[in-house]
Amino acid sequence: MRLEDVKTPQDIKNLSQDELADLARQIRETLVTTVAERGGHLASNLGIVELTLAIHRVFDVPDDKLIFDVGHQSYVHKLLTGRYWRFHTLRAFGGISGFPKRSESPYDVFDAGHASTAISAGLGMARARDLLGEKHQVICVVGDGAMTGGMCYEALNDAGSTGTKMIVILNDNEMSIAPNVGALSSHLTDLRISKGWTSTKRRVKTQLEKIPKIGVPLYRFVHRAKSFLKSLVVPEGFFTSLKFHYFGPVDGHNEAYLEHILQQAKGVDGPCLIHVITQKGHGYDKAEEQPERFHGVPPFYVETGNNREVSTLPSFGSVMAEELIRLAGTDRRVVAVTAAMAQGTGMDRFGKQYGNRLFDVGIAEEHAVTMASGMAATGLRPYVAIYATFFQRAYDQLIHDTAMQHLPVVFLLDRAGLVGEDGATHHGIFDLAETMPVPGLTILAPRDLEELRLMMRWTPSAAAPVVIRYGRKPVDLEERFPCRRFVPGTWEVLLPGADCVLLAVGSMVREAVSIHDILAEEGIGAAVVNCSTVKPLDEGALRAFADRPVFTLEEHVLTGGFGSAVTGFLVAEELPPPVITFGLPDTFIQHGSRGQLLRYLGLMPEQMARRIRVALSQHPQQGMRTSGD
Amino acid sequence: MRLEDVKTPQDIKNLSQDELADLARQIRETLVTTVAERGGHLASNLGIVELTLAIHRVFDVPDDKLIFDVGHQSYVHKLLTGRYWRFHTLRAFGGISGFPKRSESPYDVFDAGHASTAISAGLGMARARDLLGEKHQVICVVGDGAMTGGMCYEALNDAGSTGTKMIVILNDNEMSIAPNVGALSSHLTDLRISKGWTSTKRRVKTQLEKIPKIGVPLYRFVHRAKSFLKSLVVPEGFFTSLKFHYFGPVDGHNEAYLEHILQQAKGVDGPCLIHVITQKGHGYDKAEEQPERFHGVPPFYVETGNNREVSTLPSFGSVMAEELIRLAGTDRRVVAVTAAMAQGTGMDRFGKQYGNRLFDVGIAEEHAVTMASGMAATGLRPYVAIYATFFQRAYDQLIHDTAMQHLPVVFLLDRAGLVGEDGATHHGIFDLAETMPVPGLTILAPRDLEELRLMMRWTPSAAAPVVIRYGRKPVDLEERFPCRRFVPGTWEVLLPGADCVLLAVGSMVREAVSIHDILAEEGIGAAVVNCSTVKPLDEGALRAFADRPVFTLEEHVLTGGFGSAVTGFLVAEELPPPVITFGLPDTFIQHGSRGQLLRYLGLMPEQMARRIRVALSQHPQQGMRTSGD
Repeated sequence: MRLEDVKTPQDIKNLSQDELADLARQIRETLVTTVAERGGHLASNLGIVELTLAIHRVFDVPDDKLIFDVGHQSYVHKLLTGRYWRFHTLRAFGGISGFPKRSESPYDVFDAGHASTAISAGLGMARARDLLGEKHQVICVVGDGAMTGGMCYEALNDAGSTGTKMIVILNDNEMSIAPNVGALSSHLTDLRISKGWTSTKRRVKTQLEKIPKIGVPLYRFVHRAKSFLKSLVVPEGFFTSLKFHYFGPVDGHNEAYLEHILQQAKGVDGPCLIHVITQKGHGYDKAEEQPERFHGVPPFYVETGNNREVSTLPSFGSVMAEELIRLAGTDRRVVAVTAAMAQGTGMDRFGKQYGNRLFDVGIAEEHAVTMASGMAATGLRPYVAIYATFFQRAYDQLIHDTAMQHLPVVFLLDRAGLVGEDGATHHGIFDLAETMPVPGLTILAPRDLEELRLMMRWTPSAAAPVVIRYGRKPVDLEERFPCRRFVPGTWEVLLPGADCVLLAVGSMVREAVSIHDILAEEGIGAAVVNCSTVKPLDEGALRAFADRPVFTLEEHVLTGGFGSAVTGFLVAEELPPPVITFGLPDTFIQHGSRGQLLRYLGLMPEQMARRIRVALSQHPQQGMRTSGD
Repeated sequence: MRLEDVKTPQDIKNLSQDELADLARQIRETLVTTVAERGGHLASNLGIVELTLAIHRVFDVPDDKLIFDVGHQSYVHKLLTGRYWRFHTLRAFGGISGFPKRSESPYDVFDAGHASTAISAGLGMARARDLLGEKHQVICVVGDGAMTGGMCYEALNDAGSTGTKMIVILNDNEMSIAPNVGALSSHLTDLRISKGWTSTKRRVKTQLEKIPKIGVPLYRFVHRAKSFLKSLVVPEGFFTSLKFHYFGPVDGHNEAYLEHILQQAKGVDGPCLIHVITQKGHGYDKAEEQPERFHGVPPFYVETGNNREVSTLPSFGSVMAEELIRLAGTDRRVVAVTAAMAQGTGMDRFGKQYGNRLFDVGIAEEHAVTMASGMAATGLRPYVAIYATFFQRAYDQLIHDTAMQHLPVVFLLDRAGLVGEDGATHHGIFDLAETMPVPGLTILAPRDLEELRLMMRWTPSAAAPVVIRYGRKPVDLEERFPCRRFVPGTWEVLLPGADCVLLAVGSMVREAVSIHDILAEEGIGAAVVNCSTVKPLDEGALRAFADRPVFTLEEHVLTGGFGSAVTGFLVAEELPPPVITFGLPDTFIQHGSRGQLLRYLGLMPEQMARRIRVALSQHPQQGMRTSGD
């Protein structure tokens, strides 16, 4: 059967094992060619082909509720649930999302993007089912990486306590975004060994290659005899201590055997966990060899695996890491902490230099922040690198453990602002609203790579917590505006202008410069100020600028953001507005390129220039300055 | 030795067992009489007397780092570390805190208040020790309730992974704030049974009573033979799967034996967990009988155990529960969720009526919110009751799991505003800043009990998430201002006034009425508006009021709060300020009665009236209205 003819999961129910293997091949081909074109999550989807097929053959989704944790591994599911023809729009503006979306399909029953939520959501659905007298199954697919998150434990603990019937599938590919960490991971290894699971990933592969067709009866029977029965009689360890019935480990590329186990699990009257071993990148050699790089990948060439576009600028993260390595060289108190984002944040570079001073705690932002606070309380200087969107996980810890004790932890929030194709769940647009109300924080946003360098060099002198936010895409304003010094709490006038002032934060400094250029051609003077300290506000500068209409620019929601703080200050000081705030509206923002999203939101320089022009024409000038300020 | 003569833990190192037993008696007496006078956490402190003595005899605090999880059980520690003479000021304004505070004593090495943070902080300290080449011990004391929090698991998982030397003492009193929930709890019971721990709390008591002196050698040897050796040879289960060395269970009221085990643990080269069984309220019969009531208790009479003051008004929580019971009676989709706060939030009343529809998930706010979202996604109408301060734990889940999917979950944030004597860690003053930037939320704050009733009755018609915040102390404005209806998004003018308008939220409505009365005597007309919908703002009303100076009042930090939103709207609409915002400053606020704190912050009605008077005298009236608006 051709993949394009699969309209619903019903269409694959009666396929033979040969037909299924052929379908799996087509799925992998579609995955590789589409992601090569559009970018996205590849390795995890290649690893979950057989498992997804088995689930859709054994269960009746969406009557049975299938929930993907994180959701980056839902591409195969999308291909099998009527989205083949739209799959080429993956992650494009207006196209289908790279994550499950209830708004996209009735087959997606719970949205995701962040890790470790699926068991909680699934337990909620299972309890709803029981209360409403329904009979469907609930199946949660969770990676071993996500299993390091405390929410998973909270949910397992709660489900085990009430004995609610549900199926958790642990998709164990021995790594999350990065090679997995944590004692549980080594416990899983124990399980693999003790339960007769004899292989590492390489051996799985070798074994599978030797067998002409995946899932032949012989292989199935061997497994039944060897590991499945054994798993039933040796129910010890982590999951069983939480009152889950444990199945496994199971070969995640043996579709027939997976079906068999899923059928068994269906009948268990209580919570059960199926431990499935899969290989990330399975079936595409480049991804098998570099599963971490092909976790989330930009467009690439299928033959070579090389990226199509090579960035000429280093990322903010790599500059941060370079400076941190320098600091660590002269200050033994400097340590780095991350939460399964070592590569994404650049901390892997630090780790290569100072392996014993990098602490990757797993997908556990809450713990990361409090652990770092403990370090700071006893003399270390921790630098915690987390994506802005995931930092939402540690809101209470920031307040309760770091800020309340004035501990000198530096938080490096990468991917702040619009992240582009990953969409709503991943935009880092709440971090200022999250941090600005917290007493005692210094909040910074560099205008470009060079200013981040200077900020990093300043951090050792900070006596209290510091937050530095920067975006995914590097910015280099160096040539036109050399960055010579950074003084916290002091804003920098980049361009003079007597008619209005543009107060810009981080990534928006570059846009403000563009606005200045556009308006200058029309004879309108717009001063550009780099507000690289977001908290505390540079009150002196603000007072000085308030003789002109003030415009604030930030890549962040307007509510509770920088513009809100500027407005509040000016009003409290009874300084004359108008203030017009440019930023993100009070709505969730979907996926698309950053440029497309900015245009959609009216935040491209020419769009903002237009609004400024109109505003100025309505307000006769309130004051005049010449230049330079 | 007299307790008052204990200046440092050194003073108790050489006491005999008889002297220790006598000291324990004095400690219990001091705990009971002081908490009877001042209110506070009693049962947990009575339960931890012997354990705290043993820790201070075996370890050298503060060279060795002792971290209390939550910290409400640190009173005994405070009495032994030079704070006996100040202990009568417990929880008073300017007095010592009810929680560990680094600012209070060098013996307190990490602040706490919220649950499940100690192992993370301790691991940070242990890693700092190892990197800096120091040799001290790290001891974390964690209750079995706190152990239901995911952060504990994240920290155990991380510590087990690196094999870092540290001691976690699990203080298992078989309940947290409420009787404990979760599969882990039943696993602990398994451990107690399987390891030869033969008793329930009652049997521990009986046994101890039979032995004239706690900790006589016979008892110690019996234990050594029976349970300690057994624990060493049967290292299975939850903690060992996370690579912790497990000791226990140990009788937590046998001081000598505890010392013995602590000495053993000292020598373990890696992370270890000591499972200690204690009895909440031990030694004070009223607290033993009602440990839950004596967890946190207002001033009471020692003889009877009865509260000194009896509130005549019901609490917000009880009114909420009453209405929820009514809703549940006609709508089978209604369910209640809480995170180990059933009694504190009033949900226990709901549970008595609808036991199978109340889900207490343990100290696991993250999971609570996502679990409720899963319920809402499949047809239920969950009501999640959490203290405002603990809701900070679920910031990401609110955004990512509830709001982004527009799921109709109702969040009931109890203890919003200044909570009084529990202090900085417990004030619920960040919840508006947390929720207002989140798209699609409706945020409400009732002015009094009656308005909460009406809000609850409205909630079933909401199609998206709703947040309702209310304070610890009940407010009843009924007599003067009968509450007849609630329309979301519409503000209510309670009192007319032509000279200025007071926009007040929740608890501050009553204060605004007082301000009105004070100013009215001087001939100043201050309109009082009940802004019971905080989001969305009643923009029509705001436009109408902007002809007069506007004052906003909220029991919440000013940054990112209600006043900030009002200011932002007025400025964006180019409506004439001045706006003056009354609220909490950008600093952490310590403990004291609500009245003392409000006075300290300049937020008592007469203080605010003074500032309004000055502001009005500086601003000639901008408009006149007659009455009623």
